[in-house]
Amino acid sequence: MLRVGVNGYGTIGKRVADAIRVQPDMEVSGVAKRSPDYVAIGAEEAGFRVYAADEDRIDEFTAAGIDLAGTVDELVADSDVVVDATPSGVGAQNRPLYERHDTPALFQGGEDATVAEVSFNARANYDEAEDADYARVVSCNTTGLSRLVAPLHENYGIEKVRATLVRRGGDPDQTDRGPINDALPDPVSIPSHHGPDVQTVFPELDIDTIGLKVPTTMMHVHTVNVTLENEPDDATDIRERLRSEDRILTIPEYAGIDGAGTLKDFALDAGRPRGDIWENCVWEESITLQGRDLYLMQAIHQEADVVPENVDALRALSGHLTGPESRSLTNETLGIGF
Amino acid sequence: MLRVGVNGYGTIGKRVADAIRVQPDMEVSGVAKRSPDYVAIGAEEAGFRVYAADEDRIDEFTAAGIDLAGTVDELVADSDVVVDATPSGVGAQNRPLYERHDTPALFQGGEDATVAEVSFNARANYDEAEDADYARVVSCNTTGLSRLVAPLHENYGIEKVRATLVRRGGDPDQTDRGPINDALPDPVSIPSHHGPDVQTVFPELDIDTIGLKVPTTMMHVHTVNVTLENEPDDATDIRERLRSEDRILTIPEYAGIDGAGTLKDFALDAGRPRGDIWENCVWEESITLQGRDLYLMQAIHQEADVVPENVDALRALSGHLTGPESRSLTNETLGIGF
Amino acid sequence: MLRVGVNGYGTIGKRVADAIRVQPDMEVSGVAKRSPDYVAIGAEEAGFRVYAADEDRIDEFTAAGIDLAGTVDELVADSDVVVDATPSGVGAQNRPLYERHDTPALFQGGEDATVAEVSFNARANYDEAEDADYARVVSCNTTGLSRLVAPLHENYGIEKVRATLVRRGGDPDQTDRGPINDALPDPVSIPSHHGPDVQTVFPELDIDTIGLKVPTTMMHVHTVNVTLENEPDDATDIRERLRSEDRILTIPEYAGIDGAGTLKDFALDAGRPRGDIWENCVWEESITLQGRDLYLMQAIHQEADVVPENVDALRALSGHLTGPESRSLTNETLGIGF
Amino acid sequence: MLRVGVNGYGTIGKRVADAIRVQPDMEVSGVAKRSPDYVAIGAEEAGFRVYAADEDRIDEFTAAGIDLAGTVDELVADSDVVVDATPSGVGAQNRPLYERHDTPALFQGGEDATVAEVSFNARANYDEAEDADYARVVSCNTTGLSRLVAPLHENYGIEKVRATLVRRGGDPDQTDRGPINDALPDPVSIPSHHGPDVQTVFPELDIDTIGLKVPTTMMHVHTVNVTLENEPDDATDIRERLRSEDRILTIPEYAGIDGAGTLKDFALDAGRPRGDIWENCVWEESITLQGRDLYLMQAIHQEADVVPENVDALRALSGHLTGPESRSLTNETLGIGF
Ligand SMILES: NC(=O)c1ccc[n+]([C@@H]2O[C@H](COP(=O)([O-])OP(=O)(O)OC[C@H]3O[C@@H](n4cnc5c(N)ncnc54)[C@H](O)[C@@H]3O)[C@@H](O)[C@H]2O)c1
Ligand SMILES: NC(=O)c1ccc[n+]([C@@H]2O[C@H](COP(=O)([O-])OP(=O)(O)OC[C@H]3O[C@@H](n4cnc5c(N)ncnc54)[C@H](O)[C@@H]3O)[C@@H](O)[C@H]2O)c1
Ligand SMILES: NC(=O)c1ccc[n+]([C@@H]2O[C@H](COP(=O)([O-])OP(=O)(O)OC[C@H]3O[C@@H](n4cnc5c(N)ncnc54)[C@H](O)[C@@H]3O)[C@@H](O)[C@H]2O)c1
Ligand SMILES: NC(=O)c1ccc[n+]([C@@H]2O[C@H](COP(=O)([O-])OP(=O)(O)OC[C@H]3O[C@@H](n4cnc5c(N)ncnc54)[C@H](O)[C@@H]3O)[C@@H](O)[C@H]2O)c1
Repeated sequence: MLRVGVNGYGTIGKRVADAIRVQPDMEVSGVAKRSPDYVAIGAEEAGFRVYAADEDRIDEFTAAGIDLAGTVDELVADSDVVVDATPSGVGAQNRPLYERHDTPALFQGGEDATVAEVSFNARANYDEAEDADYARVVSCNTTGLSRLVAPLHENYGIEKVRATLVRRGGDPDQTDRGPINDALPDPVSIPSHHGPDVQTVFPELDIDTIGLKVPTTMMHVHTVNVTLENEPDDATDIRERLRSEDRILTIPEYAGIDGAGTLKDFALDAGRPRGDIWENCVWEESITLQGRDLYLMQAIHQEADVVPENVDALRALSGHLTGPESRSLTNETLGIGF
Repeated sequence: MLRVGVNGYGTIGKRVADAIRVQPDMEVSGVAKRSPDYVAIGAEEAGFRVYAADEDRIDEFTAAGIDLAGTVDELVADSDVVVDATPSGVGAQNRPLYERHDTPALFQGGEDATVAEVSFNARANYDEAEDADYARVVSCNTTGLSRLVAPLHENYGIEKVRATLVRRGGDPDQTDRGPINDALPDPVSIPSHHGPDVQTVFPELDIDTIGLKVPTTMMHVHTVNVTLENEPDDATDIRERLRSEDRILTIPEYAGIDGAGTLKDFALDAGRPRGDIWENCVWEESITLQGRDLYLMQAIHQEADVVPENVDALRALSGHLTGPESRSLTNETLGIGF
Repeated sequence: MLRVGVNGYGTIGKRVADAIRVQPDMEVSGVAKRSPDYVAIGAEEAGFRVYAADEDRIDEFTAAGIDLAGTVDELVADSDVVVDATPSGVGAQNRPLYERHDTPALFQGGEDATVAEVSFNARANYDEAEDADYARVVSCNTTGLSRLVAPLHENYGIEKVRATLVRRGGDPDQTDRGPINDALPDPVSIPSHHGPDVQTVFPELDIDTIGLKVPTTMMHVHTVNVTLENEPDDATDIRERLRSEDRILTIPEYAGIDGAGTLKDFALDAGRPRGDIWENCVWEESITLQGRDLYLMQAIHQEADVVPENVDALRALSGHLTGPESRSLTNETLGIGF
Repeated sequence: MLRVGVNGYGTIGKRVADAIRVQPDMEVSGVAKRSPDYVAIGAEEAGFRVYAADEDRIDEFTAAGIDLAGTVDELVADSDVVVDATPSGVGAQNRPLYERHDTPALFQGGEDATVAEVSFNARANYDEAEDADYARVVSCNTTGLSRLVAPLHENYGIEKVRATLVRRGGDPDQTDRGPINDALPDPVSIPSHHGPDVQTVFPELDIDTIGLKVPTTMMHVHTVNVTLENEPDDATDIRERLRSEDRILTIPEYAGIDGAGTLKDFALDAGRPRGDIWENCVWEESITLQGRDLYLMQAIHQEADVVPENVDALRALSGHLTGPESRSLTNETLGIGF
């Protein structure tokens, strides 16, 4: 039984904690949180042991009626491995803490690739993390692109990828983020950092990405062009391959799903926890082939798609299951696939 | 066992169907839907018998692989009572259908009050629906106001209510609704229709409402001023009374909940189905008393607050439980109260 | 000829500078700006002398090809009076600079009332600023409320004002401000600071305000209830009085103006510089009287309504014209009134 | 003096009318409008002769105090040429009216290409409209793409264009348009209709476009990839060529312009009527060259970019000036170029 500490219990951390909890081979040793807000209260009500990430704020937790199990240092000491899901940049600052305790750790995509030996995607490079002590689960956008690239690369070869990432301005709970009425080039320079990030997973891949930020909160949308090396028979061929990928959901035309609003509604109807969509969502109607040029559009639930990847990365680090074994166990326990 | 047919399986209909299903004294005889989209597929996967609301589109259902149980006429015939949750105005057109089958029915708040003998709110006037064949569950906004008015009225007497309703432009799945970048007086005339609608529940109440529509999808927000007849001791007195109401959630300051985004996040964390918040959400910090003048702000989850009301209204119509009995059974089965 | 320096050339500063320029009795001695962006370039192209607000960034101005006239210290030295339009809180830090040069100054509504002897609204208390060295032009929302309060107070007496302010989340150029999909109580506590701010202009007024922030950028919208001391004949009476106010625009129903989008479109069609609407915009259809209770809705162009107030405040400080003389000169030169 | 009637005086029509008015060789014979709203009132105040587009509504105009000059039939009779700027699809219905009067006409991009002999862009194919009686000025997006394609095609040759169009959901005055919180594939199928529309101007061009709709009102944003036939020296080479195009504005990095909000602010500061940006706005920092692959991002002011094109198209139809003569006259009279 792998004992996993979750340091940083926010959008990603709380989802990863819930996902770990339903695995047969791991358990949550505790979660660390900075402030005693509704999320911390939720952690306690969910039965997690709560640790203070910031010693100076222990009194605030007490005032809010939260029973602390200790400080983050104690959490790390009590864990076989840590998932660091603190805000971008804080993970790198935390690495010495994990080293001091000689505790392996996972970092998230908000960190620079240099934070860990390996940048991880379960579909693409599970094996590379098997000898590592530290791995970084790549960001939501990079995860979404990697899952698409992997099967295309294997089946047809890829000459070049060009993608535009129309990114949500903030998560639903981030009420201080904008823009309100603008579609912002972000970054203005091309290629955006997302392309190089995909290359941490596929070092040889020729990929150019462009980023924008728009006033939405629910999902990112990618418009993707892939020039394949070998021409597929037809778009149906591509569609079938994507359909057979376990972490890709292909949306049929008759479903009447036109965007993130209906996608989340669909996931909530299906009883998904928090309406989470762990899969890439590819519109079947958008899959188009012009010679060797493939086009498609996909939506990525930024809060959710990295969650199964974290679970798999934990097994890769600990080394007790192979990639296929881990992925299929994760899929089954979470209920991936509609 | 009350057999309930749900005619119109959209935002409200699907939630009411799920709520009925967990009641010990009722069951869903089937649901009627017009188009075979993801919501219809979801109905079938949830195990509901699906009926075609539109005979001309039966083939489309077949094409989408949905097994129809029949047409809406058959659904009505096979039900003891119908919940009509079709779009505004369609309910009134459906009334002759229910009359023809001599089947009692509930309508929703999008219909004119004249569609039924009684306009219903479980907290305020359960008893009035006990002899009725047809009742209308008042709209999300009216439900939210009625729940607030009832305890204030009982405890302090109400001289006058003045409320501004800052309404969400559309539900998350309604991608064709605006506005995008405007806060629209809607209606421009004052009082808005909401005040008179509250008076269908509290005929004697002096209430003026003003409506606006803003570019949000998650919840309505009400700013409310109530001039009470008798001055309460202090704001704490009010807060305690509201806290003790079963369908009002009071939000403490330390929770760090600043709006609908964090409220829904909180509800999803708590495992609520679809993140539904059946309760009025009143910010404790906003509860202010200036002499006999009470002020507060509340958020109303438009998709959810009428759901328990529908369940109670079904029992009021069928007459087998009293108001307090029904409300407490509904609360318990749904998990109302955090 | 009053020589006016404008310190802080942003949303408000650039509009005030343009407004001063068209006055026969004043001129702009120069404008001070921190960064050499498009706004600074625009200042130079408009023919204003540009001063550096920050000595450390002089080189950046040179690099962008902007010819600096000096530093802000020199601007103050060369001005009879300064309009400080720096960001909230910076004005107070600048006051010692103005005192050192013995130069009178105007501050904006983002500063605390204590920044100056007088909080100013041209319609309500012009005379109070006549002996002052420092005055604060109240905020956009307070200006909008004061203009409405003044004629009602004079004609009917006011027992109480209750207003909900549905505020725009950010100005059109503030792309980092949210919320994206939320209507936030802001502040959550009631009354919001706006009520007390109106009392800096009308010390005796009984007023309670509630604030919200929504995902719009163009205008604030106020829903206002005023309990009058003396009952007017009818709503028409009120409408005519408001129509006769020079800085209130009443919107007739046939105009088809439903919100800020159409209002700005209308102002741009009319050739208004920057589409600025200096007037309060009151929907005629919303003006409603229930006994002594008046209701109405108004939209306030946050970027523009304080501009004529600044011009008048300059004359009040310098003392060479009376309030009525100044207001009518300002109205005429700017083209106030449609 | 070419007498031009403008049929349909909305977003596009009113801008075209104003643009015609400042030309030395044409005048507006009148404008036709359906409803007597603020736009109609503005037309009259601007001194245009107003004609009723709908005979049944003449009384409404009278009630609103608008003096009608006649009906649309009379307007056509009194014009040498008509600019039809009615809503999408209405133009085609109007064509018989123009034919009956033997009056040449321009249509807008909302019509199918088949509405006229020529699809027009001033930079790309002015000459093709010289013998035509009817021409269609292509849509805002197609105009924006054509202006970019033309110089690249001439200087380097184009192998292929791939573009993602992140389109504004509605114009600022269209308060009933969404989405509120979604980035919608629109259309879901690829290529979107925009590519074929560009081919009405460049029949040989290999172009694939993808369309999305987002909750913004101010401008469209295009991410563009062009595979050139001949490799330019470097990105600077491209930038200089685009800079030298009269209807392309290149945005330097130091300007601090990050999106549509600041772009419009900049245009309003510069005194542009209605803040109109007739030029494509290309971010210099985004211009990137990877071998023969060019990338860039541009913003397109949907309400404005087709306006100079309409003016030029009028001259092409009437045949009295060459393309270069017309374009330079239009640029000069409107003040194109910052
Ligand atoms: N939100 C997304 O869409 C998303 C998607 C993929 C990856 N990520 C990455 O995941 C990481 C976490 O992002 P998030 O969105 O969950 O952030 P978040 O802000 O929602 O949560 C971060 C949590 O860390 C806590 N925290 C802050 N400082 C801390 C510290 N010093 N020590 C311990 N805990 C601390 C906060 O209280 C909060 O609970 C980032 O690297 C981010 O880039 C985020
Ligand atoms: N959505 C809300 O926020 C909300 C809140 C409270 C009350 N209501 C009221 O509830 C009612 C339903 O609203 P909704 O938001 O659920 O609408 P919806 O559009 O989400 O769902 C309506 C459903 O009825 C079906 N339908 C359409 N025409 C039909 C017909 N002729 N016969 C049978 N079914 C038909 C549609 O396919 C759809 O499934 C309305 O009266 C509305 O005013 C809605
Ligand atoms: N924008 C509005 O809606 C609005 C409405 C009414 C009143 N106000 C008030 O007007 C004031 C200015 O607001 P704004 O919206 O124009 O801000 P802004 O940010 O648009 O402009 C402020 C300007 O001041 C400059 N600046 C920053 N620090 C400076 C310093 N130390 N010295 C000199 N200049 C400096 C900035 O470069 C910028 O040009 C604030 O008090 C604000 O509360 C704003
Ligand atoms: N708005 C844009 O962003 C944009 C950009 C480029 C091209 N276009 C195209 O320009 C055309 C006009 O679009 P718009 O945005 O100006 O529309 P609009 O709705 O703003 O204006 C259309 C005008 O036509 C009038 N009208 C309606 N029916 C009429 C009829 N039967 N006869 C005469 N007048 C009638 C309306 O009253 C209105 O004044 C469309 O083809 C559109 O696709 C629009």
